[in-house]
Amino acid sequence: MRTIHVPAGAPYDVYVERGLLRSCDSMIADATGAKRFAIVSDDTVFALYGDAVTRTLHEAGYEAVAYVFPHGEASKSHETLLSLYAFLCENQITRTDALIALGGGVTGDLTGFAAATYLRGLPYVQIPTTLLAQVDSSVGGKTAVNLPAGKNLVGAFCQPKCVICDPDTLSTLPAAEFACGMAEVIKYGMIRDAALFETLIAHDADSISSVLDDIIARCIEIKRDLVAEDEFDTGARMLLNFGHTIGHAIERYTDFAWTHGQAVAVGMMLVSQRTAGQNVTELLSRCLAQYHLPTEAPAERAVLLPLCANDKKRAGGSLTYVACKTIGNGTLHRVPVADFMNTMG
Amino acid sequence: MRTIHVPAGAPYDVYVERGLLRSCDSMIADATGAKRFAIVSDDTVFALYGDAVTRTLHEAGYEAVAYVFPHGEASKSHETLLSLYAFLCENQITRTDALIALGGGVTGDLTGFAAATYLRGLPYVQIPTTLLAQVDSSVGGKTAVNLPAGKNLVGAFCQPKCVICDPDTLSTLPAAEFACGMAEVIKYGMIRDAALFETLIAHDADSISSVLDDIIARCIEIKRDLVAEDEFDTGARMLLNFGHTIGHAIERYTDFAWTHGQAVAVGMMLVSQRTAGQNVTELLSRCLAQYHLPTEAPAERAVLLPLCANDKKRAGGSLTYVACKTIGNGTLHRVPVADFMNTMG
Repeated sequence: MRTIHVPAGAPYDVYVERGLLRSCDSMIADATGAKRFAIVSDDTVFALYGDAVTRTLHEAGYEAVAYVFPHGEASKSHETLLSLYAFLCENQITRTDALIALGGGVTGDLTGFAAATYLRGLPYVQIPTTLLAQVDSSVGGKTAVNLPAGKNLVGAFCQPKCVICDPDTLSTLPAAEFACGMAEVIKYGMIRDAALFETLIAHDADSISSVLDDIIARCIEIKRDLVAEDEFDTGARMLLNFGHTIGHAIERYTDFAWTHGQAVAVGMMLVSQRTAGQNVTELLSRCLAQYHLPTEAPAERAVLLPLCANDKKRAGGSLTYVACKTIGNGTLHRVPVADFMNTMG
Repeated sequence: MRTIHVPAGAPYDVYVERGLLRSCDSMIADATGAKRFAIVSDDTVFALYGDAVTRTLHEAGYEAVAYVFPHGEASKSHETLLSLYAFLCENQITRTDALIALGGGVTGDLTGFAAATYLRGLPYVQIPTTLLAQVDSSVGGKTAVNLPAGKNLVGAFCQPKCVICDPDTLSTLPAAEFACGMAEVIKYGMIRDAALFETLIAHDADSISSVLDDIIARCIEIKRDLVAEDEFDTGARMLLNFGHTIGHAIERYTDFAWTHGQAVAVGMMLVSQRTAGQNVTELLSRCLAQYHLPTEAPAERAVLLPLCANDKKRAGGSLTYVACKTIGNGTLHRVPVADFMNTMG
């Protein structure tokens, strides 16, 4: 088993091992100190893995109840959140009990925010079941729900007590969702690890599974290091936003018909075309294509860029974007919004 | 001016001075580093003090917009919260701007929770305009909104950047709301300060105003000390709950027709009758009566006590209550719920 220790304000461990989901009871109980658990999951994931997690907890003598909501980004709403709060009240979940997020990013973000706010905070555990959630959203303590005005506009920083990654769960992941996670994996290579990028470009969507455990662990380490340097998202951690400012604009432009990964893939391309050499941009493009990710924007820059101005990373009249002039070396650029528009236009 | 420094995880100052509300611009700007502000207030308080605060900010060259909601506990809801979030989005409030809570406990709790969660957190300032908010809810960083299932069930710990108490605002406070704040003032004397209690019993609701500035500052100091000892509400801070476990049951029993202060007053009486000597209970009763607070329960103990079982302070099968065997010396008692019922029955 690979164990990645995350030395956040409230330190925790991320465990990566195939089959872990079926034997995670003592791991969860030790990390949370709880004996009663509310599993939070969407209908798709709960149908696949709900029984396994419930069983391992019950067999160890713990109580577990389950809150299951309809899958999809639309559920990352205050409507679902209020329904989850009501469930926790009805089941008399107290501060010594714990929540378990079983699923992808929507489940993790929603559950984490509920754990951060219900009774002013109770412990929670992440069991990410998508590649994206395993390498990205389950580490760092960012939790969120959407508002009608935009994604992730409400949230809290709240660390999980532990994160349990079982790469076996990726076997049931649709190809499009796997590609979505690979966009973030490629991002890690671009911003911080040229060797990782070389591994990625030496494989493709079919052959990558043989080295996936190592890749997941390496991505988590990179994120761990960035988060440890900067727990409250003001400096180094912003490297993780490579491709995201324009990516979020693409998500909004396509009304979220494009996945987060597709949007970030093209976001990275559009930034590279304006900030990196042709060789870097071509390598990035080739790598994205090998993992079935798009490299062409769904609209002109002149259409997409104004949509960046609402990005919540915009502080006052400035924003910070990430460039990778060489692979493995992301850099931060804090500039007036107008300069960003000029550079990227 | 009295300044009370609160050495929390994120330290801040509480300022107490008459007239402060009309000249608080630089204090607010220095504490938050912001130049744009969203004032959050209810219709009653904004009508009285909204112009003064807006004017002092505008005259100093800052931008200020105002979100005003209907007064009353019913507004401490997710409905108001979502409407406030939408207002912040529409006005493009970013993380370098700040919120200003202008009002009583409802306004402070709601605004604080919005500040803790909007964009995953932005700075906020408290300007409490009720006695209760000045001595209690504006210090300690507890923020909350209610759920249909109960009060304060959702919240976050989030410290304000500063707290501005202007005792002049208490002149417009209805007598019932003043009494509500006095219940907490009396509580501070009971749990931690016999000299404060003596001052209170030497005055009454009419004569107290001459020494009120000192009393407000002293209550804030006591809360500051308890919070500093225990920022995350697991130990010493729980002394602040004296009378609150049964008090919350009384609020629920009366469907919140009784104010928080009235309920806490009787909560303190019911606990004292079972845990303190007759002399202490009689002094407490006399003091409460001098400030027009009730001393008799609205229902039998057998009716009220079962309503305590849902209290969110109940952790697993236990709860912690506070007793004051002598005035000025509150003690914590963590017991199984059944033992609490027996002791208080």
